Amino acid sequence: MQIKKAYTQAVSRKYPEAVVIAIAKDGKGRYNPITLGWTMITSHKPPMMAIAVGLARHSRAVIEEAGEFVLAFPSSTMADAALFYGTNSGRDMDKMQEFPVATQPATEVDSVLLADAVANFECKLESQLVTGDHVLFVGRIVASHVNTDETVKRLYTLAPGYKMGGVVAAKVDG
Amino acid sequence: MQIKKAYTQAVSRKYPEAVVIAIAKDGKGRYNPITLGWTMITSHKPPMMAIAVGLARHSRAVIEEAGEFVLAFPSSTMADAALFYGTNSGRDMDKMQEFPVATQPATEVDSVLLADAVANFECKLESQLVTGDHVLFVGRIVASHVNTDETVKRLYTLAPGYKMGGVVAAKVDG
Repeated sequence: MQIKKAYTQAVSRKYPEAVVIAIAKDGKGRYNPITLGWTMITSHKPPMMAIAVGLARHSRAVIEEAGEFVLAFPSSTMADAALFYGTNSGRDMDKMQEFPVATQPATEVDSVLLADAVANFECKLESQLVTGDHVLFVGRIVASHVNTDETVKRLYTLAPGYKMGGVVAAKVDG
Repeated sequence: MQIKKAYTQAVSRKYPEAVVIAIAKDGKGRYNPITLGWTMITSHKPPMMAIAVGLARHSRAVIEEAGEFVLAFPSSTMADAALFYGTNSGRDMDKMQEFPVATQPATEVDSVLLADAVANFECKLESQLVTGDHVLFVGRIVASHVNTDETVKRLYTLAPGYKMGGVVAAKVDG
């Protein structure tokens, strides 16, 4: 049975939520990563994915100016890097210098792939839409990459407070 | 290490993906549910969520005409209903009559809540954006509801082919 609750309480039931890391080149030539839980696929043909970035975030301007980005699906072992990239601002630091992870060059956009991620998608910024306090960036995928290790699994936010880790299928009764 | 792959192969690494059920009233007065894996939160203040619906889907016209809908987070025991609502069209049938589930009236929009879901969010259609072969519907949340049973967990698509079920946190080494 459903009972009415404040939005903030109701939405706390959403977890686990898969996260992505968006990486775009900033005006200083640095590859700036930001970890985001608000993301979705938005088109099959052509393939597109969207992310929501806070209007006041440094990454908002970086992605808008770059016009292209990589969307990495971090693996479940990348929780510490994902947490760092999601809770610090590239306005204040070179995030990938402060918390280095293995990268490879992207092939179609000026950005980097995360070598240990489950998969990476190179995106050209296709459109954007302001929704409340975030902007939706829609990226058209121009190249796709996967980890040669097929056993790696995605990283999720498991609970409020940035508790992150992997998930496995649960036995369902009912 | 990353290797380049076709998009369809790379995106198959995305799972598990949380699903939602969007319910809107159609022109015949029927509450039409559609199950969607492509969904995200898009704003904190005011709260908003987005869904992507195929341009050719019956639900696209239904949601656009209704201008409001409920977004239910189905629980892990609702896999059969979610599969039915996602793989049949309301153009051909009354989906909730063909596959009944427990409902409660919504309070702020003309739709229904799914009583056994983890949570339900009543939405007013705020904006929309065509992205490739889908349209993004952005809903402003005007009421939120949760299951009185706090132990219920969300339903996920676990693998290609609409394999659905629940997930639990995995122990992560590394």
